[in-house]
Amino acid sequence: MPGNTFGQLFRLTTFGESHGAALGGIIDGCPAGLVLDLAAVQEELDRRRPGSTALGTARTEGDRVEFLSGVIDPALVNDVPELVEEGSVITLGTPIGFILRNQDARSGDYDALKKIYRPGHADLTWDLKYGIRDHRGGGRSSARETACRVVGGAIARQLLAREGTVVQAYVSQVGEEVLQVPPSELRFEGLWLDPVRCPDAATSARMAALIEQVRSEGDSVGGVVSCMVRRMPQGLGEPVFSKLDADLAGAMLGINAAKGFEIGSGFRAAAMRGSEHNGALEMGYRITEESEEAGYRVEEPAAVSSNDHSGGTLGGISSGEDMHFAVAFKPPATIARPQRTVDVDLMEVTLEAKGRHDPCVVPRAVPIVEAMTCLVLADHLLRQRTARL
Amino acid sequence: MPGNTFGQLFRLTTFGESHGAALGGIIDGCPAGLVLDLAAVQEELDRRRPGSTALGTARTEGDRVEFLSGVIDPALVNDVPELVEEGSVITLGTPIGFILRNQDARSGDYDALKKIYRPGHADLTWDLKYGIRDHRGGGRSSARETACRVVGGAIARQLLAREGTVVQAYVSQVGEEVLQVPPSELRFEGLWLDPVRCPDAATSARMAALIEQVRSEGDSVGGVVSCMVRRMPQGLGEPVFSKLDADLAGAMLGINAAKGFEIGSGFRAAAMRGSEHNGALEMGYRITEESEEAGYRVEEPAAVSSNDHSGGTLGGISSGEDMHFAVAFKPPATIARPQRTVDVDLMEVTLEAKGRHDPCVVPRAVPIVEAMTCLVLADHLLRQRTARL
Amino acid sequence: MPGNTFGQLFRLTTFGESHGAALGGIIDGCPAGLVLDLAAVQEELDRRRPGSTALGTARTEGDRVEFLSGVIDPALVNDVPELVEEGSVITLGTPIGFILRNQDARSGDYDALKKIYRPGHADLTWDLKYGIRDHRGGGRSSARETACRVVGGAIARQLLAREGTVVQAYVSQVGEEVLQVPPSELRFEGLWLDPVRCPDAATSARMAALIEQVRSEGDSVGGVVSCMVRRMPQGLGEPVFSKLDADLAGAMLGINAAKGFEIGSGFRAAAMRGSEHNGALEMGYRITEESEEAGYRVEEPAAVSSNDHSGGTLGGISSGEDMHFAVAFKPPATIARPQRTVDVDLMEVTLEAKGRHDPCVVPRAVPIVEAMTCLVLADHLLRQRTARL
Amino acid sequence: MPGNTFGQLFRLTTFGESHGAALGGIIDGCPAGLVLDLAAVQEELDRRRPGSTALGTARTEGDRVEFLSGVIDPALVNDVPELVEEGSVITLGTPIGFILRNQDARSGDYDALKKIYRPGHADLTWDLKYGIRDHRGGGRSSARETACRVVGGAIARQLLAREGTVVQAYVSQVGEEVLQVPPSELRFEGLWLDPVRCPDAATSARMAALIEQVRSEGDSVGGVVSCMVRRMPQGLGEPVFSKLDADLAGAMLGINAAKGFEIGSGFRAAAMRGSEHNGALEMGYRITEESEEAGYRVEEPAAVSSNDHSGGTLGGISSGEDMHFAVAFKPPATIARPQRTVDVDLMEVTLEAKGRHDPCVVPRAVPIVEAMTCLVLADHLLRQRTARL
Repeated sequence: MPGNTFGQLFRLTTFGESHGAALGGIIDGCPAGLVLDLAAVQEELDRRRPGSTALGTARTEGDRVEFLSGVIDPALVNDVPELVEEGSVITLGTPIGFILRNQDARSGDYDALKKIYRPGHADLTWDLKYGIRDHRGGGRSSARETACRVVGGAIARQLLAREGTVVQAYVSQVGEEVLQVPPSELRFEGLWLDPVRCPDAATSARMAALIEQVRSEGDSVGGVVSCMVRRMPQGLGEPVFSKLDADLAGAMLGINAAKGFEIGSGFRAAAMRGSEHNGALEMGYRITEESEEAGYRVEEPAAVSSNDHSGGTLGGISSGEDMHFAVAFKPPATIARPQRTVDVDLMEVTLEAKGRHDPCVVPRAVPIVEAMTCLVLADHLLRQRTARL
Repeated sequence: MPGNTFGQLFRLTTFGESHGAALGGIIDGCPAGLVLDLAAVQEELDRRRPGSTALGTARTEGDRVEFLSGVIDPALVNDVPELVEEGSVITLGTPIGFILRNQDARSGDYDALKKIYRPGHADLTWDLKYGIRDHRGGGRSSARETACRVVGGAIARQLLAREGTVVQAYVSQVGEEVLQVPPSELRFEGLWLDPVRCPDAATSARMAALIEQVRSEGDSVGGVVSCMVRRMPQGLGEPVFSKLDADLAGAMLGINAAKGFEIGSGFRAAAMRGSEHNGALEMGYRITEESEEAGYRVEEPAAVSSNDHSGGTLGGISSGEDMHFAVAFKPPATIARPQRTVDVDLMEVTLEAKGRHDPCVVPRAVPIVEAMTCLVLADHLLRQRTARL
Repeated sequence: MPGNTFGQLFRLTTFGESHGAALGGIIDGCPAGLVLDLAAVQEELDRRRPGSTALGTARTEGDRVEFLSGVIDPALVNDVPELVEEGSVITLGTPIGFILRNQDARSGDYDALKKIYRPGHADLTWDLKYGIRDHRGGGRSSARETACRVVGGAIARQLLAREGTVVQAYVSQVGEEVLQVPPSELRFEGLWLDPVRCPDAATSARMAALIEQVRSEGDSVGGVVSCMVRRMPQGLGEPVFSKLDADLAGAMLGINAAKGFEIGSGFRAAAMRGSEHNGALEMGYRITEESEEAGYRVEEPAAVSSNDHSGGTLGGISSGEDMHFAVAFKPPATIARPQRTVDVDLMEVTLEAKGRHDPCVVPRAVPIVEAMTCLVLADHLLRQRTARL
Repeated sequence: MPGNTFGQLFRLTTFGESHGAALGGIIDGCPAGLVLDLAAVQEELDRRRPGSTALGTARTEGDRVEFLSGVIDPALVNDVPELVEEGSVITLGTPIGFILRNQDARSGDYDALKKIYRPGHADLTWDLKYGIRDHRGGGRSSARETACRVVGGAIARQLLAREGTVVQAYVSQVGEEVLQVPPSELRFEGLWLDPVRCPDAATSARMAALIEQVRSEGDSVGGVVSCMVRRMPQGLGEPVFSKLDADLAGAMLGINAAKGFEIGSGFRAAAMRGSEHNGALEMGYRITEESEEAGYRVEEPAAVSSNDHSGGTLGGISSGEDMHFAVAFKPPATIARPQRTVDVDLMEVTLEAKGRHDPCVVPRAVPIVEAMTCLVLADHLLRQRTARL
């Protein structure tokens, strides 16, 4: 089965090369009757866009998404939900097709790369796999493809919002700069205005300085994106192969440049004792509904863990407690320094990169981590509908 | 789609509760004409078995696998490959069904647990998901289910062996004891005789001592299993959602008690610079065939990396270089100490565990990591057959 | 993707050769909490069994199904539904594994066929596909494999029964003998006692006489199985590729010896005018609940068609009206007459069939048509759970 | 799993409503390196277009397909196959995205239908399924959606052409006019110029006259499309659930207005004896390569059937002989006569259809039957690549 489809019941299929006519995708399985704010989708897309932070590349495609099907103007249907806001559309239950035209693609920048395998890039392996390759901007191996995931994730997020579920990612490490504030103390207001997308101002400033320094050295730097999910639905995740942790891990390692995933205690768990790691279960409460504006919250009794080492799942199934996990990203492979490499004839050459590139990918990876998380959760939300009679 | 099937073209579907009549599975998609050594499958299963190392639990189910279909005695077919060894069978291209009868299941041990949610176990979340649960030995949430994965993986391994591919996992950390030998210097002879399955004798001894100490304290301890794949086929992995890294990550986080996955440089990549992380590509050679016994090796020219940070893939596709990755496991949740928890009515109770349990899961996780790796690779090996004209 | 799995959410995977150790399967996706009568499953299996009608072959395997997982004794769980009958079990939401041991397999009967391609059988094409073949009893191409479908269908039927849905197939043609009674006038009491499984006694007698005559001539004869579904759930079927009609057609043509499928007006529609074919929609009532024993019926207003040409779907989606369709079966390929054919070396030979064989397959195809129908409907019943918010 | 994806390895996912912004789709799994003639795709699309025959509706959308990804100009890649014709492109192995903008959609024509369920249409059942519906032109239930299938099928056809495989459908019945020429005597030159797409001129003329008469009566008429596949690859089809016959049946019943499918002897088989139906296997020859222009043909020895009752498969697997099957279509539901029906409140109303509609769908169904056939065969061609070692 080809690898351009994600999800089982809420599924996204994408297409598009970096310098082709357009990128796009189809979201299939979104239930009928969901009121969608399409402007919010564009807003999420804008967060991923190069140039969306002061620290990224200068390329500004605009990335305007055009929706082609699957939604309808409420004025055209018989039974309109009462509270449809101006400008909203409603899902028909049919596939939602969308495209993003490519613009501002200076393909000429890449002519020199037609016969060269860039170190750390997928050029070599695509040739090994397909025997043919679109070298312009990396073709489909370009992270530009993730724009389609953000569109799919933004729709998924609006489905999750009906459960009260909130998915929030953030940068927790850039190079040797590590966010030390415990997750429970983090505040996310204004995160999208922060150039690093780190929720602690002091750490963010150090990270930004490091990124600028690395850029000035013609180098790049890695990092970690963490993600927290609040008001998780209970019972999500299939217990054997498609554990919620497993599907999240697969989703995250499917993001360009990702090298690692951990949930809850993660790799620290290897050094722990069971008596320390096990969270005692206690009688507590979980929030099922909450409105900060309206100032209310609804709670129900629930078993809660005395620590957060599990990361929100037990046996691969969500407990309803906050979920948190982290994704490690390698430094971007394109750097402004000469590098030794080989060409398609295996002759050794020296590569001098041109063009515009990010010195650090993690600020722009934040919306992508969120999008993939939303896709996984929306899929499991629907799957859970058939788990019981 | 239910979560008991793994893989797209080479696919394993499993069933079975820990204390039901039997476990079993169906391996579908194994190509016709593969000569199989079924005794080798049983041998792999024996490595996973409780009691297979001196450090595990005393439960000894035997775990005899019975094959029910999909293979045939070479004497019964018209065109026998010449070199079929005595006792081998040949695949028919039809699904390979198998079962493992449950034995030695002291279900009575678990009566007290019917109404209790054990900390760190899946009891709570299964009830949240299904509203019903087989509490005996954890039902299907028991790691006993992984026996079926080992069977499937052992068949997959024999398919991979035709490409010369060798999958080798080992314990690289137990608690605070970490294997310091670089992967390229490791030797794996006799690994299955080592009680910890750590390829360095001195480290293994320290790990074994730690496990015994933890056991004597009524506690448990976590660890890390690393895995190396040699003579990897080139070009495996779908480039977007089903990257080889992504499918491996999903496979590994689908193993009970796994909390993290990293490939190549993994989480260390976050602190690295691009100039350090990028492996220069060089003209080199890769081994395509090798026989230590016959004393020969066949090589072909290939682009090779100057470092191993990528872990064997670029852009999610295998380069043909050695692949290596690591999986973090939490300490087993069952410990011989009283723990606070709640029952099904959310009343707080104290749990005193009985029965036989592993103080450390990683030695027995080694064959499971290998099995899941073999399943992923066999699946992608077949998928790659349709990538090109 | 291998072809031994049927369904998306309610899915059956089967294995087994006719003369191997066992047949079996895994039913995955059956919701948790379903009370199952396993004796009823065996009863359905008995209807498919050779020897279940006076007109079939003499082979009597017994076909005892053994369930291995996925269900639990109500006494072992905390929340038992009140009305669980003695002997019932409850589904756990985990995969239901089952096997049927092969018995009474006189493999020796087939020795002569190892090198011969029987006319009308799959011997030739299996060799073309796989290059290897289990010739004993046709291996996996034997209709014996359908026993597993009957098990899966019997579980699906018990899920459908909760909606009040009743699936009833019957023989409507044997050779030139055609059932002329309109479907709405058919009565199905005692159908399983009728040797032909035809609901009209006079027609059944003529069919039985024809079958006996054909048998005495060493020949075989084809037929048609019709199927009616009453109290259909509304809204089942995906509107484009996976129309309910399409999935039923695929299910039916997947039964051995099936050559055609039609729904509602079927091939007669080709000769009709729209003014005749279109059913006017009228305001009417549909039965949502009914008990003949208790003597009550619950109805609700519904749009109903003035004719039955649609067969119960419009645009591939069920309207809730009775569904009816028909499946054509060719005469069994094995006959007691010498036939010209070729062997594996393409040399022409004369085949003289031995062994025990059915002169007409349709009476035994009735439970298989029902089973496949139940599998399709149960799958779509679950799929429909995610169609709307 | 949502129902807008067709195929396993060669897979088409489509989107689009009749009067939305655009229709489109993604072809995923087409192997890399296939030289494609995109003009030929447009040509196939033109055959499906309303107005493509003198007998269809007057609506002429143009239906220009725009390809957005997955193919590349040969000038841009390193290894060009030698014989690439001017204007051709090469597949990259990545998904092929395409769109067809909607034009000439007089949505106003449909205002009166917002609250009415048209008899014989899917209006009622879509509301039952989704609770919401795009009434304009039938939304996604419109046959306009099949344009995307024709695009996918046209790509599949070019993959099949490399095997020499030729898929040819034609009209064999309109109302009571039935084509009587045996398939082996049919000649297909100029078929696309015939307004009925019937390969016999005399029959075509009678069919055309019937269609015109039916149109003048404000009525519509049904028909049958037959399909023949020559130079079939051997061994295609999975033996149990995904038999080639089964996948074709599912594909055909997934076409709008289809009511029946039969392969080979079809429903006639029900009245036949085994001694008549079985084709004796004989030693013969099959054409593996052929060029009428160059005047040569390559043959190889093969077992061939003495009759064509099987339709080209045995046990669900292709024998390599010509495949033939037929699809019954009901008369179009929209007719120019008043019809009784109900509205969304179940009140009875009289419907007077407006707009432009086909009196007979089968001439335009011919390219759709071909497209679905090509999709099924291309998928199984790729699946067969993993059947053997």
